[in-house]
Parts: sequence; C-alpha cells; structure tokens
Amino acid sequence: MDLELIQSLVVPNTTKIVLLSSDGLGGFPHPDTGRSELETARIPCLHALARRGACGLIRHVAPGITPGSGPGHLGLFGYDPLRYQVGRGVLEALGIEFELRPGDVAARGNFCTVDAEGRITDRRAGRIPTSRCVELVARLRAIRLGGVEVFVEPVKEHRFVLVLRGRGLAARLTETDPQAVGRPPVPVRALAPEAEAAATLVNEFVEGARRLLVDAAPANMVLLRGFDQLPGLPRFPDVCGLRAAGIAAYPVYRGLARLVGMDVLKTGGTFTDEVATLRAHWDAYDFFFLHYKDTDKAGEDGDFPGKVAALERLDAEIPGVEALRPDVLAVTGDHASPAVLGGHSWHPVPVVVAGAYAAADSVERFSERACAAGSLGTFPAHHLMPLLLATALRLTKFGA
Amino acid sequence: MDLELIQSLVVPNTTKIVLLSSDGLGGFPHPDTGRSELETARIPCLHALARRGACGLIRHVAPGITPGSGPGHLGLFGYDPLRYQVGRGVLEALGIEFELRPGDVAARGNFCTVDAEGRITDRRAGRIPTSRCVELVARLRAIRLGGVEVFVEPVKEHRFVLVLRGRGLAARLTETDPQAVGRPPVPVRALAPEAEAAATLVNEFVEGARRLLVDAAPANMVLLRGFDQLPGLPRFPDVCGLRAAGIAAYPVYRGLARLVGMDVLKTGGTFTDEVATLRAHWDAYDFFFLHYKDTDKAGEDGDFPGKVAALERLDAEIPGVEALRPDVLAVTGDHASPAVLGGHSWHPVPVVVAGAYAAADSVERFSERACAAGSLGTFPAHHLMPLLLATALRLTKFGA
Repeated sequence: MDLELIQSLVVPNTTKIVLLSSDGLGGFPHPDTGRSELETARIPCLHALARRGACGLIRHVAPGITPGSGPGHLGLFGYDPLRYQVGRGVLEALGIEFELRPGDVAARGNFCTVDAEGRITDRRAGRIPTSRCVELVARLRAIRLGGVEVFVEPVKEHRFVLVLRGRGLAARLTETDPQAVGRPPVPVRALAPEAEAAATLVNEFVEGARRLLVDAAPANMVLLRGFDQLPGLPRFPDVCGLRAAGIAAYPVYRGLARLVGMDVLKTGGTFTDEVATLRAHWDAYDFFFLHYKDTDKAGEDGDFPGKVAALERLDAEIPGVEALRPDVLAVTGDHASPAVLGGHSWHPVPVVVAGAYAAADSVERFSERACAAGSLGTFPAHHLMPLLLATALRLTKFGA
Repeated sequence: MDLELIQSLVVPNTTKIVLLSSDGLGGFPHPDTGRSELETARIPCLHALARRGACGLIRHVAPGITPGSGPGHLGLFGYDPLRYQVGRGVLEALGIEFELRPGDVAARGNFCTVDAEGRITDRRAGRIPTSRCVELVARLRAIRLGGVEVFVEPVKEHRFVLVLRGRGLAARLTETDPQAVGRPPVPVRALAPEAEAAATLVNEFVEGARRLLVDAAPANMVLLRGFDQLPGLPRFPDVCGLRAAGIAAYPVYRGLARLVGMDVLKTGGTFTDEVATLRAHWDAYDFFFLHYKDTDKAGEDGDFPGKVAALERLDAEIPGVEALRPDVLAVTGDHASPAVLGGHSWHPVPVVVAGAYAAADSVERFSERACAAGSLGTFPAHHLMPLLLATALRLTKFGA
C-alpha cells in the first residue's frame, strides 16, 4: 500500500497513539516445558490488553525472512522494508547518533589483521577493546582527502563508521571486505559512473589507513562495507499527519526514529525513564514510539529466564502507559529473538491493538500461539500504521 | 518476494530438507459423511506430523484459480507461478522427458479429424489408441523443414509433441486449433517479428502433415497449440544454495524438477521405491523433492475411497522418511483434486512444516479444516521455500 494513499486519507483529530516496540518480542517454546517466553512469563497486564484488544501476528519482511532491527522498525513505522532499504553504513551511523546529512556516504568499518603480504588473517582484529578502537580511530582522523570532509567515529570493539561529506558523492560502491581470510582487502569499485569519485576517495582512505596502522597489529588494516547514503524516506509526521516522538534508551532506535522524521526525546537509560518521558511530553505529541530493549538483549544472549524476566518488567510498566489513556495502544516488536535460537528469527511476532474502536477478538493471552488465532491474522508490518491511524479515527474513507 | 533476495540471504549449513508433494492432496467433504478424504483416512503419522509442526493452507496461484501441475509445482519450488509461466508445449515435452534445449520451440499436438472440405469434425480424432498415435508420428517424422531439426514424439492417444530446433527461432505464435468443430485449422501467425521464421516453418509442417495423413482418418489432420520455449528460470540449486534432487515415478514431475535445475534421481515405479531412492542418496543432497502421484490419480478419477486408500498408503511411508531424520520435513501438494469434483480444484491445500525450529501450533490433525487454523495461515506456494530454508537455518537476516 502506498504511503501517498495513507497521506491522502489522513484527517485531523486529537486522539493519541502509543506504539510500544518490545525489541525481539517473539520467542519460541523452551524444549523442557513446551512454552515460549511469553507463555512462561507472568504478564497479567499484557494478557488483559490482549483481551480488550484485537490481536494478530506481524511478519515484518516476508515469510522465512529474519528482519534486522532497521527493516523491523521501518516496517512498524509504515515503510515497506523491501521497498525502503537502508544500508548498513547508514544504520551504523544512526546507531552512534552521527548526524548524517543528505548526500553523506557512510560505511561500516572493521579493524582487521593482515600478515606481512597484506593478506587478512582476522577479519575482526581479535575484537580489540573499544578503548583501542578509539585510539586508532584518532589516528585515522589524520587522513585528508581532496574536496571532502572525512569523519571517522568509533563504535564498539573492532567496529567504526566512516563518513565522507562533499558535493556529488554517490554510494554505489563494492566493499573492500573479501569475506574470507587468506586474501588481501579488495579495492572498492564504482557500481555506477556517478560513484567513481567516491570510489577513488575511499581507496585513498584505505591506503592512508594502511600506512597509519602499520605498527598497530592486530588492528593493522581496515575493511569497509555497506556504503550507503540517507534514503529519501517520506517523513512519518507528514505521511501520518501526526506530531510524532520517539523515546528510546538505545541510540540505534533513536536514529531510526530520527531517520523518518520523528522528534527524538531525551530520556534516561531505563524503560521506567522512558515512561516518565512519555508522561512528561504527553500533551505535545499525537504519536509516541516507545522502545523497550531488554527482551531482545536476553533473547540474543540465549537467556530464556532473562527474557521471561524482561517481559515481566515490561508488563509492570504497562499500567503506567495505560494511565495516560492513549486512544490507541499497540504492543508488538520489530522481530522475534527466541532465546533457544540466541538471535533474531523469522517467526512472526505477536501484536495487540487496543482502543475503543479496535474490535476486541476472542484472544485471551498475549503469546505467539494465542495471537495466531487473532482477528488481525498474520500481516506485514507496514500495514500496522494505517490500522493504528484508523483505530484513532484519523483516516477518512477511500472513494465516495 | 524476489528470488534474488532469497539468494542474497542464503548461508551454508548441513541441514537437510524434504519436500513431499502428494499430488492433488487437498480434497472436499463427501456429501454422505461431511468428511473430506483426509478427514476420512486413517493417517496417524500425518496427524502426528501436524501436531509437531506448523500448519497452514497453500494457495498456489490466486484465490479461485485452479493450478495445473506445472504452476502448482513451480510454486512449491519457490517460483511465483504468475511470474514464471511455462507454456503447454514445454510442459508436454517435459512430460515425456524430451530433452528440450534452450531455444527449442515446443508445441502440443493433437491428431484431429477433418472432412472433405478440411473442416474439423473431431478435435481429438476419436481419441485414437496410443499405438496408432505412435504409427502416425512415425509418418510425420518424414517431414523435413529448411534449416531446423524437427522432432515429433508420441504422447498418449491423440496427443503428440512437436519440437523445432534451430538458430533464432521464437515461439510467440498463435495456435492452429480454432477451438471449435466445423471450421478448418487456422495457419499460425507470428505475434512478434522475431517469430516470423518459426511461423513459416510450422505452417510448412502442418501442410506436410495434411498430405501425409490424407488416408489416416479419423486422424487425418493435426492441430498445434501452446508454442513455447524453455523459460529462463533461475536455477533452484543456485537460488536456494542447496544440492537438490527430485524423486518422482512420473515423467512430468521429473521434468519439472529438471526444469529448475534439480538432479533427477533414477527410481522405481512405486512410492516405496521413491523412499528407497531417498534413503540411498541421503548423504549426497541437502534437499529432496519427493513426489507421490496416487492421491491425484484417485481424485481425478472421482474415486473417493481410492483417494482415502492412497492417503493411507502415503501415511504408511512417512515413518520411512522420518527415520532419515530430515531437519525439515514439509508435506503438502501441488493443488487439490477432490474426488467429488473429479479433477483439480482451486481449494487451498494443507501443508505441515515440521522441524526443530518450525514452531508447533495447536493444530492436531492433518486436514483441510484443521490446517486452516494453523499458524502459517493461508499463503502463496512460493512463500514455502523461504520458510523451509529459514527453518533449516539456511537464511541470514535481512538488514542490520
């Protein structure tokens, strides 16, 4: 469905929408109990929400496709993640809240180890500590390239971000990472004529890095990949006709909210802080994207009891959100992160949409299996926002 | 979803996938009992599979559209059958395991009866016996056309295949069958300039056939339709990153497996033979397409008890497949063939996907009605392969 269609149907209203994304919400049955994290946790408030709302499952990208956090959230914000793709360099820059500007070319960088012949022996430089990454990034900042500004920013361990800022750059570039050890890094090539200038500059940067890092083993070389520029996304507040705010303790989710044009609110490091921020800004916005990280962290760590506990902590915050009396409250996630898989997975993710006009179904529990029987069915993530807008009486009819 | 996307996400693994296609699997309630073939049969192994797997219904082409065996299987192999269309001439050639080469133009041929004025009186020549078809095809092989090789191959009763092999042929041709009696066959016309040469050659062939068959009534003329060339399908082993084998007792299904680039394994005439072939080649492949014909045969014959018995024979073979411990086992069909309809139908077909990461749902029986409540929902056939790949942990995530 086109965002232009949605935008054309938006009508003003004073209703308020909260979209709570519990990262990596979906889980998988524990082999000992046959019950998933959601089926194990004591989450009375989420179950009550499921009873009074309409439930379903969200499939973010396509059947069998495991979403990354970027596509997962873009889908929830209404953008078909297959149509609106964001490169790894841009996501990495968003993740450190680097203020990317239109036209900037961003890449994900790795420090790596090369031998005397320049062949890669470790693509992650032994995962050097972040403090070492900061030191080496400071060295790389000495590199000057003709006609462009160069930004090098540390991320974590062996990872950094490279950004080139200048006129007429294009990001259609191959990567330098041969994706295998025993081979030297490969020069980038332009995949389109307009990217030739950027290709030359990037290869100069890599050559400069090689010289500056010659004594820095195991981090004596760099690999660059995921070259991209800010995508030209329609602005969420314009598409949806909403004053929209993002509240997230983690930078990448703030970056994703900013990417679509939401205001990003300053908040503390816990979800309790986030709910306090929500309360403090309640009157100033129509839509809040509220992000909860702990479910994903525990899932990615393969920590089943930890994920159960994270769900129970989330449940305890639901009354605080409901006390604000949002007209529409949706709870879902950007992808599944089952503890038994220890990472993101392709399984569809439970969703509940509660509100006066949400049309409660017969689902009584908030879980993968219970929501599979919900009235919303299994649907693509980018269908959620139109549904939330409609439930908030913010869309007029299509056709006379 | 693009096959390119799938291919870009494939990662190596050692997991094994079995896709069992029970031809014409789906049925329809018997008017006397209100129970379908699957609901009538004693199929404890399939029910057990449904209990431990995720279930749903497959709609192969689109709502209300009855799939032929070609599109039905292409969908199961991951090819959107509306995007990847294969002409009848090619399917007919595959059905006799004629080794079509790229560029060959294949057509389905019928012997027909014409009167003294050349007007068709029987479009199927009284369904002459296959032995007569073989004799007349031998006569037609005397036809020589300039610059191309001509192959004429008998099929069954009044049906044959015509293949022209040469440089620069194109298949965008109208058919000679006026689809009505009382009219003469019509000359083929080129639908594109590049097909002019083929049009001329085909019309020469028809003229030659007319002369050679003048004394052969009721089979004294031919009709040609469904001109097509091998489609440029992405190769299944490349798209899915699988060493893939097809096991089928019937030629058309072997042809379909070969069409997408699977290795076709030599097997016997029964499904027990097919399972033995599966066992014998277990180590050499990652993916097996296993075809069971009997369900469709009974369904097409309108033989309800026969289809029930075919399902029970299939059920008895399931333990032999499970004994190989496939990481993912999917059972479904290429279309429904309800005995009460005596042919293919548009009804969605049950599917079960079993495997450690399939996420069992609450479905306890393998039937049309039970699977309708499954967690996979009702989905297009070409979404199945990505799901099987994901469940076999052979796809990485999309986006960071």
